[in-house]
Amino acid sequence: MSTLSRVRAAYARVAAVDRPEIWIDLRSRADVEAEAAVTDERVAAGQRLPLAGRLFAVKGNIDVHGLATTAGCPAYAYLPEADAPAVARLRAAGAIVLGTTNLDQFATGLVGTRSPYGAVRGAYDPARISGGSSAGSAVAVALGIVDFALGTDTAGSGRVPAAFNGIVGLKPTRGLVPTTGTVPACASLDCVTVFARTLPEAEQALAHLASPPGRDLPPLPQRAPGPWRVAVPPLPQLGELDEGWGEAYEAAVEHLVAAGVSVRTIDLSPFTEAAAMLYEGAFVAERYTAVGSFVDKLISEGGAGLDPTVAGIITRARDIPAHRLFADQERLATLRTRALAELGDADALLLPTTPGHPTLAEVAADPLGANARLGRFTNSTNLFDLAAVAAPAGLTPAQLPFGVMLIGPAFTDGRLARIAALLQPQLSVAVIGAHLSGQPLNPQLLALGARRERTTTTAPAYRLHALPTTPPKPGLVHVRQGGAAIETEVWRLPAEGLGRLLASLPRPMTLGQVELADGSRVPGFLCEPDALTDAADITEYGGWRAYLDR
Amino acid sequence: MSTLSRVRAAYARVAAVDRPEIWIDLRSRADVEAEAAVTDERVAAGQRLPLAGRLFAVKGNIDVHGLATTAGCPAYAYLPEADAPAVARLRAAGAIVLGTTNLDQFATGLVGTRSPYGAVRGAYDPARISGGSSAGSAVAVALGIVDFALGTDTAGSGRVPAAFNGIVGLKPTRGLVPTTGTVPACASLDCVTVFARTLPEAEQALAHLASPPGRDLPPLPQRAPGPWRVAVPPLPQLGELDEGWGEAYEAAVEHLVAAGVSVRTIDLSPFTEAAAMLYEGAFVAERYTAVGSFVDKLISEGGAGLDPTVAGIITRARDIPAHRLFADQERLATLRTRALAELGDADALLLPTTPGHPTLAEVAADPLGANARLGRFTNSTNLFDLAAVAAPAGLTPAQLPFGVMLIGPAFTDGRLARIAALLQPQLSVAVIGAHLSGQPLNPQLLALGARRERTTTTAPAYRLHALPTTPPKPGLVHVRQGGAAIETEVWRLPAEGLGRLLASLPRPMTLGQVELADGSRVPGFLCEPDALTDAADITEYGGWRAYLDR
Repeated sequence: MSTLSRVRAAYARVAAVDRPEIWIDLRSRADVEAEAAVTDERVAAGQRLPLAGRLFAVKGNIDVHGLATTAGCPAYAYLPEADAPAVARLRAAGAIVLGTTNLDQFATGLVGTRSPYGAVRGAYDPARISGGSSAGSAVAVALGIVDFALGTDTAGSGRVPAAFNGIVGLKPTRGLVPTTGTVPACASLDCVTVFARTLPEAEQALAHLASPPGRDLPPLPQRAPGPWRVAVPPLPQLGELDEGWGEAYEAAVEHLVAAGVSVRTIDLSPFTEAAAMLYEGAFVAERYTAVGSFVDKLISEGGAGLDPTVAGIITRARDIPAHRLFADQERLATLRTRALAELGDADALLLPTTPGHPTLAEVAADPLGANARLGRFTNSTNLFDLAAVAAPAGLTPAQLPFGVMLIGPAFTDGRLARIAALLQPQLSVAVIGAHLSGQPLNPQLLALGARRERTTTTAPAYRLHALPTTPPKPGLVHVRQGGAAIETEVWRLPAEGLGRLLASLPRPMTLGQVELADGSRVPGFLCEPDALTDAADITEYGGWRAYLDR
Repeated sequence: MSTLSRVRAAYARVAAVDRPEIWIDLRSRADVEAEAAVTDERVAAGQRLPLAGRLFAVKGNIDVHGLATTAGCPAYAYLPEADAPAVARLRAAGAIVLGTTNLDQFATGLVGTRSPYGAVRGAYDPARISGGSSAGSAVAVALGIVDFALGTDTAGSGRVPAAFNGIVGLKPTRGLVPTTGTVPACASLDCVTVFARTLPEAEQALAHLASPPGRDLPPLPQRAPGPWRVAVPPLPQLGELDEGWGEAYEAAVEHLVAAGVSVRTIDLSPFTEAAAMLYEGAFVAERYTAVGSFVDKLISEGGAGLDPTVAGIITRARDIPAHRLFADQERLATLRTRALAELGDADALLLPTTPGHPTLAEVAADPLGANARLGRFTNSTNLFDLAAVAAPAGLTPAQLPFGVMLIGPAFTDGRLARIAALLQPQLSVAVIGAHLSGQPLNPQLLALGARRERTTTTAPAYRLHALPTTPPKPGLVHVRQGGAAIETEVWRLPAEGLGRLLASLPRPMTLGQVELADGSRVPGFLCEPDALTDAADITEYGGWRAYLDR
């Protein structure tokens, strides 16, 4: 599908979903179509544009050249002289910006309703909030308008709306994606984030966003060998949850256990105590540093377009004394030491992304209280300089998306995504050769998060050949007559893992449906027919291992 | 000399110097003598006490069990339940505390005059200030009462008084010495420091102070190979200096160049701009966090014993807003990046420790201005998380001590001391064997900061023997008759380096005076006579190298 046709489909989708509050500045269809046509020409001319055809949306506090940056406040608007580096990197790879999206004003909120451009409604239940502050970006992804979107995250703005709209939100390690060209919320904590419907899509975008481009990332923190280790709090430490949310969380934990993850209970209190400091303590003063003098001036001129809740939070932060901030920073350092000690050698902490999902009416009735509750699990992540991945994990009793977070040490972003993948739908794959346990390519499977489910045989309808490949591989061929049962292992792996396996498959191997002894069919390794020309028939051995041991 | 006799000498010195303002709490002579007798008994019983016989003083804001901690404010006094870890580690190694010393109240000052216990006068010119805030500790060392002393350093309190009193001040990397049990000035910046008359004495104490005891220090930052690289600012960037101080600084630079150091000019402005932020900006609010509520209460009760200048600084810090602190922290981060870029691959930045040395009268006339000027070069060190060594470097035109600092990356404390040693008196050593250029032990000399001055021979009055040692070494012996001239290299190294060489010399090697071809005598390698019993006379080769090449 050409980029041009994808753009046309996106604008049709914009019209169909009828959610005008998603956008602060949706580009004109003509402009975007013209850009898409150029992209298609460049691809046709052989240029390497790995994100060609991808459409994305940008939160309204991130600079996009040609569009006003508003941060959700019309009076704040300015025309940036250049794309923010995050935007520029995606565009350089061929992706196309559809527009800037609505947000809690000055990224101050987790609700998505604090905006003069309108309250953003949840993608699945318009009576509930979208979550924020990256509200429009998340809903644009969830409703299938764009492939991915940029958000920002200080207290949870890149994760809460991911949870409420059933999508993935990557909250990268602080510093991994430059925040240059974004309107600061709390400059020392802000991160640029990615939303997408699947982990691979989000990770592909992050690979282009991460800095410094062309230079090595910091070395991944070492881990002790063994299965993934995930820390979980005792359920009562999660505090008051929406009805059925405790069960949804426990199901996610059980899901990880079933996937072979080692789970250990830890004390959550350093995390929740630090979370409470983000708005109750002195840290909120950094929001005044960012936009306080602007807000003061706007109020003195009448305050048009200011969200009253946001304005209150920012102006109240003016008088917080610095000596309190020093005391809070010292307390935070102590809490962080405790938190890291609790994590110990765990690869990640698993938490619900939020304790519940309020309606628009509930937030309107208690703007500060409802918001504060939403940050209970997200607020401490950036204060502690941790990385996080928010991912869907089943449904709530209301049949709405339930989201969890995997939180881990700085620069373990990729590792967290691998664990989060285990919560996504799992598929089986039948392996008969070099991917069998103990065989040379088996580590590929393990790296994709696969684990062995059972050992069996194919239905007695296959013949096995020794292909002249390096390393040697077997070619499995279904035959109408004269077939035999061939030794097979069935492995379970995340759907995205199977996709990655397929993407890296070399000729002449193929993946197709393999019929097993019990009559079931699962995807499995086969081969292209022309590979059999010079290949010996080794069916008589009953399997690749027996052939190797001959 | 026994510990007991050293204690007696120290109390005699206390009486002789007649500087009562050094001490806040000098222990009774009887108590200390009793402790010294126990130390002598333990040593006699074979206990390993590497600091046995050493006497030290402790700045009055560090807990010493049995003495009140005052921080220079009588009303603040409390009796600590235990030694601060820094004190405990020195005592565990056998060192004995003589008492607690006077300081600028709450360690707020670089002058040494802001104390109800009296203004501390400089060791060499009592009309001039001692410098502070670790005033009494520095003067007690300079006047030879104690072997070393503990200070603290936030803005320069462990270095300014070192410079004014002609001694060494080690300002270790933040976190290297625990600050537990010290009254905080700015808790996030404070360091416990060491004063001593020589670098080896100070470094020996630091080796016992550094944390964590028995555990590895962080790995030393890597350095590109080559001679030491020292960064220096252009002289005009040092600003207004006392008369003759620019010349004294340039002499120190020339001294390093003559010692083989590679010197490069850098832009000092990020350092001086950050320095100005320490008191002019929001960082001073951390002093209110530390003791502000105590000071407020004391003022409401009449303010007895409060130093008015210190009280003013702390109470004015009460109302600094947190949003300004965030802005300052962000600006500091930018300045730090610039500063580290300026340093580049330099091992150290060389600066005068202060721009001048005021009199007590000058400080009394302008308490804030005189103090601010003193911190021009020291203030930024802890803000940038750097290490520093303050060391004497000749004299000012007034024949008073002139001090410089070597400032370098965190955890290069030892490296900075090696460079500082090059500014101390240098000695020659004559080498004739395994320490010659290219021979196996030559790296020992290089590590001690030695460089080759010339190649010559001994006077024709020696015989050379091949000792049966491992590695093989020559034995040089002076003879009355039948002597020959033996190939010799003369190396120059810091006096402390020669001391270290001697300390690590294995039997049967000795160091003694060697007569050279030009009739001069320098310390050089000889050997014990009994080593010659089984040793072949190899004088005929004219030197060790020729013998090896035979």
